[in-house]
Amino acid sequence: MDDQQFKQALEEIATDRKRGASELARRCLGILAESARAAPAGDGHALKERLVDRTTRLAEARPSMAPIQNLLRCWRETLASIPRHDLDAARHQAADSAETLADASRKAVTRIAEHMAGYLGSRKTLMCHSLSSTLVEVCRVLRDRELRMIITESRPLYEGRRLAQTLSEWNVPTTFITEAQMGLFVGKADAALVGADRLLADGAVINKAGTYLLALAARDRGIPFYACCESFKCSDATPQTVTLEEMDAAELQMPDWPHVKVRNIYFDITPARLVSAWITEEGVMRVWKRS
Amino acid sequence: MDDQQFKQALEEIATDRKRGASELARRCLGILAESARAAPAGDGHALKERLVDRTTRLAEARPSMAPIQNLLRCWRETLASIPRHDLDAARHQAADSAETLADASRKAVTRIAEHMAGYLGSRKTLMCHSLSSTLVEVCRVLRDRELRMIITESRPLYEGRRLAQTLSEWNVPTTFITEAQMGLFVGKADAALVGADRLLADGAVINKAGTYLLALAARDRGIPFYACCESFKCSDATPQTVTLEEMDAAELQMPDWPHVKVRNIYFDITPARLVSAWITEEGVMRVWKRS
Repeated sequence: MDDQQFKQALEEIATDRKRGASELARRCLGILAESARAAPAGDGHALKERLVDRTTRLAEARPSMAPIQNLLRCWRETLASIPRHDLDAARHQAADSAETLADASRKAVTRIAEHMAGYLGSRKTLMCHSLSSTLVEVCRVLRDRELRMIITESRPLYEGRRLAQTLSEWNVPTTFITEAQMGLFVGKADAALVGADRLLADGAVINKAGTYLLALAARDRGIPFYACCESFKCSDATPQTVTLEEMDAAELQMPDWPHVKVRNIYFDITPARLVSAWITEEGVMRVWKRS
Repeated sequence: MDDQQFKQALEEIATDRKRGASELARRCLGILAESARAAPAGDGHALKERLVDRTTRLAEARPSMAPIQNLLRCWRETLASIPRHDLDAARHQAADSAETLADASRKAVTRIAEHMAGYLGSRKTLMCHSLSSTLVEVCRVLRDRELRMIITESRPLYEGRRLAQTLSEWNVPTTFITEAQMGLFVGKADAALVGADRLLADGAVINKAGTYLLALAARDRGIPFYACCESFKCSDATPQTVTLEEMDAAELQMPDWPHVKVRNIYFDITPARLVSAWITEEGVMRVWKRS
């Protein structure tokens, strides 16, 4: 894949409005695997520099899509160990790691949903916050087992409405609330359940802002709180070092008043002490352990 | 005030869109004081029946205005003790109690704000949720003492935007967030502060849904959580017996999906164990005690 072909592929990623974030993330890894095999480079070191540059540009094409950021970050980390001089070996290793990651991503969500569904069992009421493809997959597996859901609208962009539509199409009885009502409803659930954008080194969960509040309310009401997350989302960051992405303040549709600053931080940190179990493709972990 | 005059006054209350809830509540008490003095009645018992009926109809005219519901409930309780036979004494006692309540309401908010401002002191960052006339009064008292505010938009009807406008006009540096971000910002405040729709017998705070989440986050971050509330809002209800008002689901502007039920409960219950102090017109109470 030469520079011109990469530019076209980059444009494809930047403008795609049909595929979901996980699917696009896997397409990015496909582009990088092709780049690893055929991008112009004199040696392993030069190849690595070029691949790091392409990875950065792909990540920048969709800055708010967490799965893209996560998978590309994981891949960039694997580049550290590619041979500096043996170009063929470097191409082979880099392409392999991209394809392995894409394949792992495909399988992980299904396995998480199977683990979670088996652990929870039938006839459960689950409460969740925000939209996550992993949560949707859990619901898909449980939808014929008398599942009931309590979901939030998820301000500012109301992605909970899309989840409500999916659950409606699956005939899952669903209660739809504002974030403000989470404390009123969590006690009616058998469990609270969230996806995760990232897991920190200590098991803390980075997820849509409001998740920390749900976890606090679940703990206060004696309801278990589970985080479902592919293990490749584990990060070396700590609550002290992690950066939480902030989006356009305009999403809150607030008039512009002097002295009033609108904030729109998308993620918050739920400390590991509030998590009852972490569910990855490897199974259910009741005590945090880096995989 | 005969039945025809009362009907007109009732219409005035039902259609008024200019006065705030506290002001309208005091107008209701004025109408009831006039009713006590001049409504047709054969004896104290008949007067009481008529006044209870008029109180009910006034309360029903604006069912979602908490100060009206609260003040009229307080007044209805005072009717229990009016003389059954001595009509003049009954009229006098009932009218007096209405005017006393209206006057107390006028003064209480100012005194609460003074107590709270004195307790908090200057150069403070306060976090609050939802709009309350008592909170606005606290801000008014503190606005020239380097006050900074963190406030929520308060879904579904965004009353936080009105608070933001007021704070902007007062040049108070204000951070404006979604409810979902409360956990991210409460740690930046010196205190969290809410008004209250009602206080339960055990000191639990009934306030706009989301208050319980703010109190949990404040406790988790080691930030004090204060409830500001006129003492006439104390109630004999308990968390087990209280009814939490639910508003029109249409306020969430959610498409109508089969199997999806939209809930819009306006209030939640913050247990007394999460409240650092209650501030009434009588002062700052660090340990709950019915006044």
